[in-house]
Amino acid sequence: MEKQPVVITGRIRLKRFDPAYCGGRDKAATKARTEQLGRRIGELQPKLHANARHAVLLIFQGMDASGKDGAIRTVLQYVNPAGVQTANFKVPSAEESAHDFLWRIHQAVPRRGSIGVFNRSHYEAVLAERVLGLVPKQVWRARYGQIVDFERMLVANGVVVLKFYLHLSRREQAARFKERLANPEKNWKFSHADVATRQHWDDYIAAYEDMLNATSHPAARWCLVPADRNWYRDHVIAATVHRALKALKLKWPKPAEWQARVRVK
Amino acid sequence: MEKQPVVITGRIRLKRFDPAYCGGRDKAATKARTEQLGRRIGELQPKLHANARHAVLLIFQGMDASGKDGAIRTVLQYVNPAGVQTANFKVPSAEESAHDFLWRIHQAVPRRGSIGVFNRSHYEAVLAERVLGLVPKQVWRARYGQIVDFERMLVANGVVVLKFYLHLSRREQAARFKERLANPEKNWKFSHADVATRQHWDDYIAAYEDMLNATSHPAARWCLVPADRNWYRDHVIAATVHRALKALKLKWPKPAEWQARVRVK
Repeated sequence: MEKQPVVITGRIRLKRFDPAYCGGRDKAATKARTEQLGRRIGELQPKLHANARHAVLLIFQGMDASGKDGAIRTVLQYVNPAGVQTANFKVPSAEESAHDFLWRIHQAVPRRGSIGVFNRSHYEAVLAERVLGLVPKQVWRARYGQIVDFERMLVANGVVVLKFYLHLSRREQAARFKERLANPEKNWKFSHADVATRQHWDDYIAAYEDMLNATSHPAARWCLVPADRNWYRDHVIAATVHRALKALKLKWPKPAEWQARVRVK
Repeated sequence: MEKQPVVITGRIRLKRFDPAYCGGRDKAATKARTEQLGRRIGELQPKLHANARHAVLLIFQGMDASGKDGAIRTVLQYVNPAGVQTANFKVPSAEESAHDFLWRIHQAVPRRGSIGVFNRSHYEAVLAERVLGLVPKQVWRARYGQIVDFERMLVANGVVVLKFYLHLSRREQAARFKERLANPEKNWKFSHADVATRQHWDDYIAAYEDMLNATSHPAARWCLVPADRNWYRDHVIAATVHRALKALKLKWPKPAEWQARVRVK
């Protein structure tokens, strides 16, 4: 097993990374630190909004039950909901299918000043669509380059793109599915599709691995997040989002010159 | 001055309502209660999501600086941002202007299971568009009925529509504008348009009054919110949202029958 490289810069093999990795960290201390990072993210967002020069887009991918929803909730718990735009990409509608695969994605890109969340994304076009054989190989292979070009354009236009792959073990997924079936507050989360998808586990892992290697480009790297432990997963993501916001060096905008001449009567 | 009727069911005159009204309440105790209501709203949202049978749409209207942003932030502070869809309606684009006035509004209606927020709304079509003379009288007058019909359709299709008019005094607006000009963290909120709009104060009040009287229909009443005191404003809104969510009697969905036969391997 390799130490977890949070950011993918070279070629990786997924099986070398332990989904239960936590860097020997203490759970309670890490949760407290994540909470603190969450507060800071909440404090930085109003400045992002006031300047309206950048948008921050968080892309979440991972197997069912890898904790995409939970991570989003924890990391953004102190952010004003009005400053967040979330998009859930489900099976494309007839209208969406009649367009290129990036058409519906582009529409959901957050406006400047806000934080966007993609709960699943354009990457399903090289994951589910590949594994289920919905498109031929030459089509999904060509999409890697199209995705990189699209993301580069977004970044060049002020969108900070952060991509999180939530790395879950097959065993931990089974435990979470059983919990969903047993717990009346979680039954509704369990769908027929979950069972079907689990049967393609190895195909999905292969598709994820190819995706990570083909699309972790300098403008928008993939972050590999060990996901068997919720608290470590949330910490890695919160730290990454916080670092990205801090790097923008956000200040309150300077007043416009005309403001000095205004008299409110 | 009349006691503040939170819900408008008959004909009202705005000047009879004191924007600084607070029902003799204690500030600290009221803020604590609002916080508690906010937590409960945060707890009810996951059930709204799990059932995905209703959407809740909060519509905010009010003069500049009446506190629409602040109220949204406070009331939804404990709600998972992924469960909230916010729409800010600014001056219509060329594409939007080429359609009927409800076209862009309809697109922003929240999906079932989520809380939608309209920061300004279709009501601008009978407020700004009327006051600025952008459309003739017979056009904006006809819109009252069109709005009522539209909202009735939404309600019949599972959308709970809550409409808040934030009632601010001209004097308090001046104080808030001065604060925005003086405070470097608030400069960015102050725009040329704010000065211009203030000059039409009486015309706007007349337009608001007509709007409230014409569109507070049984399926979606207007809630008149005294807005000179932030803490009372937030309390009235939080209590109204909480009451509406409770009235849905949300329970966790029953498990589907097939779930009993699933074995996770």
